[in-house]
Amino acid sequence: MSVTFPRGFRASGVTAGMKPSGDPDLGLLVSDEPCGAAGLFTTNVFSAAPVRLSRSRLARSDSAQAVIVNSGQANAGTGVRGDHDVEHVTQAAATELGLDESLVLACSTGVIGEPLHVDELLRVLPALVAGLSPDGGDAFARAIMTTDTKPKQATAERTPYRVGGAAKGVGMIAPDLHLATMLVFITTDAPIPGAEIGTLAREVVEPVFESLTVDGCTSTNDSVLLLASGAAGGDLVLPATDAWRDVSQAIEEVARSLVLQLADDAEGANHVMLVEVTGAPTEHDAQIVAKAIANSPLVKTAMFGGDPNPGRILQAIGSSGANFLPQSVASFIGDVLVIEGGQIPDEYREAGVEAARAALGEREIVVAVSLGQGAGSSRALGVDLSYDYVRINAEYTT
Amino acid sequence: MSVTFPRGFRASGVTAGMKPSGDPDLGLLVSDEPCGAAGLFTTNVFSAAPVRLSRSRLARSDSAQAVIVNSGQANAGTGVRGDHDVEHVTQAAATELGLDESLVLACSTGVIGEPLHVDELLRVLPALVAGLSPDGGDAFARAIMTTDTKPKQATAERTPYRVGGAAKGVGMIAPDLHLATMLVFITTDAPIPGAEIGTLAREVVEPVFESLTVDGCTSTNDSVLLLASGAAGGDLVLPATDAWRDVSQAIEEVARSLVLQLADDAEGANHVMLVEVTGAPTEHDAQIVAKAIANSPLVKTAMFGGDPNPGRILQAIGSSGANFLPQSVASFIGDVLVIEGGQIPDEYREAGVEAARAALGEREIVVAVSLGQGAGSSRALGVDLSYDYVRINAEYTT
Repeated sequence: MSVTFPRGFRASGVTAGMKPSGDPDLGLLVSDEPCGAAGLFTTNVFSAAPVRLSRSRLARSDSAQAVIVNSGQANAGTGVRGDHDVEHVTQAAATELGLDESLVLACSTGVIGEPLHVDELLRVLPALVAGLSPDGGDAFARAIMTTDTKPKQATAERTPYRVGGAAKGVGMIAPDLHLATMLVFITTDAPIPGAEIGTLAREVVEPVFESLTVDGCTSTNDSVLLLASGAAGGDLVLPATDAWRDVSQAIEEVARSLVLQLADDAEGANHVMLVEVTGAPTEHDAQIVAKAIANSPLVKTAMFGGDPNPGRILQAIGSSGANFLPQSVASFIGDVLVIEGGQIPDEYREAGVEAARAALGEREIVVAVSLGQGAGSSRALGVDLSYDYVRINAEYTT
Repeated sequence: MSVTFPRGFRASGVTAGMKPSGDPDLGLLVSDEPCGAAGLFTTNVFSAAPVRLSRSRLARSDSAQAVIVNSGQANAGTGVRGDHDVEHVTQAAATELGLDESLVLACSTGVIGEPLHVDELLRVLPALVAGLSPDGGDAFARAIMTTDTKPKQATAERTPYRVGGAAKGVGMIAPDLHLATMLVFITTDAPIPGAEIGTLAREVVEPVFESLTVDGCTSTNDSVLLLASGAAGGDLVLPATDAWRDVSQAIEEVARSLVLQLADDAEGANHVMLVEVTGAPTEHDAQIVAKAIANSPLVKTAMFGGDPNPGRILQAIGSSGANFLPQSVASFIGDVLVIEGGQIPDEYREAGVEAARAALGEREIVVAVSLGQGAGSSRALGVDLSYDYVRINAEYTT
C-alpha cells in the first residue's frame, strides 16, 4: 500500500522502456485534490533538472497534486535541454491529468549526463494515468527502483490519521553507471496547513534521512517529498497539539522504517552501523563526529572484516574537525568499552577484544561515542565497506 | 643515501624486536652539530605522544640534533604513560649521544593503543648509536618502514647545496592493525637560519604532502621534519636570493619524489590519480574540489574499474562545498573533455568514451578540472579503491 495507504492518494507504475532491463521505470503519485506539499532536496551544486523544477515550484507554493518519477536517466548534467525536457514532461502529465502544470512535481534517477528519453515517457503517459488506483502504492514503489533488490514501503496509523511512504536506492551504483540517488515519498491524510508541512519536513523527516550515509556521496537527484491530502477530515492539525504530536510520530515512524530499509538494502553491505554520539558541545559537533565514523573507510573495512579496531574509531573522531576535549572521549562497540578518557583502556586490550569481535558479528552494529562535554547529540547510519561495494562500483560495461 | 646525502648527517637503523616481523624497526638520524629544524604534524586531535613531544620542543626552539624513530607501536591513545615513555626514550638517546635532551625529537608508527616497548628499545640503543654513519641513510629508510614494500628515498643537488629525504607509509594498514602513518624526513646542508626553516617547511614542503590523500584519514602520528645542518658552509641562505630559490627547488624536488613514491606504493593501489584544479575563486575552494574528487569512493572505484564516469566527477565537484558557478565547470580525463559548461557534452558521449577509457588504463591518471572563475589552483594526489584495499584493511588477525 505504502504511499496510497493514506486516503486521498492514487498511484501507478508502468514500464516505459527508459531503462534497458525492461522493469517498470515510470511512476505517478496523484492526490484527489491539491494537497499540502514540501520537499527536501540534494545540496549538490549540480542538482538535476527535475530537482530544480520541483524545488522552484515548491518555493512558490506549498501545494502540489502530482509527482511523476522516472528511473533510467537522472536528467542531471544535461543543461538547458534537461530543463526543457522536464518541463515538457510535467506539462504533458498535467494535460493528461487535467491539472495546472504548476501542481506537478518531478523526480528522476538513473544515468547522469544522458538526456531524458522523453518520447518513450510520453508514449506510456496515457496508460500511466489510466492505471492510477488507490491500490497503486506497490506498483509505484516498484517503478522507482533502480539497483534496489526490493521495494521499500512503510505505513503507520494514529487514528484518524494515516501515513505511508515509499523510497528507493541509496549509496549504490548499478553496473550501468547509475548514481546512487535516494528518492523518498511520504504521504499523509492529516489536514495539515500548507505552511506547516515544511516544518514537519524539516523537523521530523530531515534528521532521519540526514543520518544516513553509505559512501559520503551526495547525489545530484536526492529528493524527499512530503504530501498531506487532508482527506482524513476533521480540524486542521496545528503545532503544539496532541494531533500534531500523533502525526509527527507516525511520520517519523515511517521515515525511520524507510531509512533502515535503505541501509539494509545498500549494495555490497553486510552490516548496518548505527553511530550514536552524545555529550558534544553542540549538535553540529556531534553530527560531524557521527558522520566521520560512519564514513571512515578504515572503520567501514574493519566492520566488514569483523575486526574490532578502536584505534580507527579514535582516529576518525580525532580527525573529524569537531570541538571536544580528547581526554573526555569514551566509546563502546555494542556494550564493550573500547575507548575511555581518550585512550584505549588496558581492560579492553586484556579482556574486551573477543566481546567486541562478537558484537561485530551482528548484522546491526552500534558504535556509541560520548564526548563528555555537553548536551549535543546526533546519530549516523552507515554500512560496511566490502568487496561487493568495490565490485559493484568498479564493474561497468557501457 | 637519502637523508645522509647532505653533509653533516649520520644515520643508522637496527632491529629492536618491537615489531613481530623481525625486520629493522628502530632508526636514528643525527646531525654533527645542532641544526635548524622545523616540523609539520598531524591535525588529528588524538596526536600521538611523540608528536606532542616533538611539536612542543620545536615550538620552543628551532634547532634539533637527533630524531629517533620506531615502528611497531604508534604510542598513540596511550595517555600519560605514552608521554612518559617517549620522554624516557629521548632522554636515554640524549645520554647515549652526549646531547641535551631538548635537542632530541621522536616519531613513532605502528599499533595505536599499545604501549611503547621501551625495554626492547633501550636494549639496542647503544648499538643504534654505534652504527651511526654518513652512509646510514638507507638503513634508516628501511628501519622506519611498516607495510611499505620498499624504502622511499630521494636526493637533489644545487651546487653547493644538497638535499636528501626518506619517507614511509601512507593510507594503508597492515594486516596487524597498524594505522597508516606518514613519516617524512628531509635534510639539507644549506646554511639556513633557524627562523627561516619553518618558512621553507610551510611554503615548500607542506603543499606537496597536503596534496596526498589515500583514504582521507589523518593518522595520529603523521610527521614531516625538515633539518638543515649548514655543513655546506658559505653565507647564510636568506629569502629572496638565488641561493634560497635553489634550495627551495631542491627541497621541492625531493618532496615531490617522495610523495609520488608514497602514492605509488600505497597498498591495494593500481593507479595514482593526479587531480589538478584551476580557475577557482580561491585556493581554498580549489583544494576542497581537488580533495573531494581524489577522496570520492565513487571516483576511486571507477578508476579501479577502468570506467570513465564523468557523472561521478561532476557529483564529487558538486557536493564538495566549494564556491563556483556550476555552468562554468569543465573537466578532462587525460586529454579527453568529459565535462563542459557544467554538463557532460554530447561529443564526449558520442566519440570520447573510448579515449577516456584508454586514459584510465595508464598507471598515472590525470583528472583536470577548471572552475572557470578565478586564479585559485590546487592539486591532490590519490589512488584507486580496489579489492586489495578492502582485503588489507579488513583482514586482521590479532
